[in-house]
Parts: sequence; structure tokens; C-alpha cells
Amino acid sequence: CPCPLPSGDTALSRLVRRLLSARRSLDLCLFSFSCPQLARAVQLLHRRGVRVRLVTDSQYMGLHGSQIGRLRRAGIQVRHDQHSGYMHHKFAIVDRRMLITGSLNWTTQAIQSNRENVLVVEDAEYVKAFQDEFERIWEEYNPANYRFF
Amino acid sequence: CPCPLPSGDTALSRLVRRLLSARRSLDLCLFSFSCPQLARAVQLLHRRGVRVRLVTDSQYMGLHGSQIGRLRRAGIQVRHDQHSGYMHHKFAIVDRRMLITGSLNWTTQAIQSNRENVLVVEDAEYVKAFQDEFERIWEEYNPANYRFF
Repeated sequence: CPCPLPSGDTALSRLVRRLLSARRSLDLCLFSFSCPQLARAVQLLHRRGVRVRLVTDSQYMGLHGSQIGRLRRAGIQVRHDQHSGYMHHKFAIVDRRMLITGSLNWTTQAIQSNRENVLVVEDAEYVKAFQDEFERIWEEYNPANYRFF
Repeated sequence: CPCPLPSGDTALSRLVRRLLSARRSLDLCLFSFSCPQLARAVQLLHRRGVRVRLVTDSQYMGLHGSQIGRLRRAGIQVRHDQHSGYMHHKFAIVDRRMLITGSLNWTTQAIQSNRENVLVVEDAEYVKAFQDEFERIWEEYNPANYRFF
């Protein structure tokens, strides 16, 4: 279903429910991630044995309120870019079959105060384009290749 | 077609080409708009008689390099939010039938340096959800109702 995301808890809980439907894998490609409820959902999936991979932006991952450190400490694999441009995607892929993407950064400010959209797409052609982009980024940001700015 | 947007001119010219296909209307809902080439395309459509409506964010529209003033001076209708949260959408609807949406703000920095995605969707269900959101925002941001923060 196409769902422009209204502000508030209802949209957040719908998003959380989609994430929690993951059984095998969750691939996250997120510019900014500071929303504790969403971090909790991701941690829960990790504890359930779902393979979670997270790609994020090097300049935003250390900002006040970022959940990236917490997720790393929980044992979740995180990779980040190594250049000054932003890794500006904001998408998630559940079980390699459901794409969740839009304008929404996973921050409390965005969820509570902004006008945002989130699309949930199960069309294989779209999912594949984003899954391919995820795999490209995952390899490109392999820490074995870090060089930095 | 689903197309994660690579950096560089090719993706920009593909985007411009989609926009220039408009014959009747172009509805723009853009958090940040500083890319001169895209502004040029929008102005061209306006001169051709395409009905252009633009919604943007009040806190970003006055930033250095913003194209909003130029588009207003060209006679294009622009409306903006009246609250402190961001109008964070980044989408365009061509002739009420083609939705262009993603992570990409219409800025030179984003186009040249960031990792971004842009989806082009012609599925009526998705287009309608965004068209409805556009019409809601367009009415909500009617200057006759401005109150400010």
C-alpha cells in the first residue's frame, strides 16, 4: 500500500509492525537514525536471529541521540561511508521482498514534527533495484577498504 | 522504471527529461531547491503554459543558493509551511500521472556528492496518494491562513 506518513504514533507503529514482520533478513540504509523505538525494534529482530545489516552516514552516526553506537554494541553489523558527501538514502528491505523507502529519516524530530512520506513496495522490480544498491554500498563500505576523506 | 540515482550529470539529465515531458501540470513538493538546472527546467515549463505549483519549506526557502525567489519572480505560484517542523517531502507529479519521489533534495550538493535514490512511478494508486497529499498541503499552506510559528 502507498502511505504518505502522517506525523504521530500511528504511522510509527505501522512502520514498526512492518519491520517486525522480518523473519530472515533486514537491510537498512539510513542517513540518520536517532529514534529509540525504531532502534528497539531493530535490536529485537537481531535478538530473534534475523540477519540485520545497517549502512549509515559517517557524519551523522556520531551526532547526539544517534542510535548507531547502541546498535553496534548490541552486535549488529554497521558500515558507513568514507567520503564527505552524504549517504542520504532512507530505506529498509525486509526479507529481500518488502521495500520501505521515502523522505523519512529515522529520527524522533522527523516522526513527530515533519511532513514526510514513506512508501511500502513489494513489486519485485523496485525491490531488486534497491537490494542491488544495498549490496553495492555494503561492499563499497567494507571497513577493509577504508581510506577516509 | 525504478532507478536509484547515481551521482552525476546522467541522472540529472534523466530527471530533467522526465520533468520536461509535462504538458498540462507540474506539482512540486520540495524541502530544499537550489539546483539551477532544475529551476531552469521548471521555469521553461511555466513559460510553455504548464501549470506549475510549488510547495516548499519556510526555513529552507531563504537559504543561500535557494532557487525559490527566482521562481517566484518568474511568476510561479509558491506556498510554504507555517510551522517549525520541516516540510520534508521531495516529490514531483507530472500531469497528475507520473510521480517522481525519493531521498533526493533538489540541490547541487545532493546531485553531485550524495548517495541518493529517485523513484519514477506511474502506478495510479501511488500517484493518487501523493497527489492527495499535495492537494492537502496546497490548501493547508494557503497564505490566507498564515499564522506563523
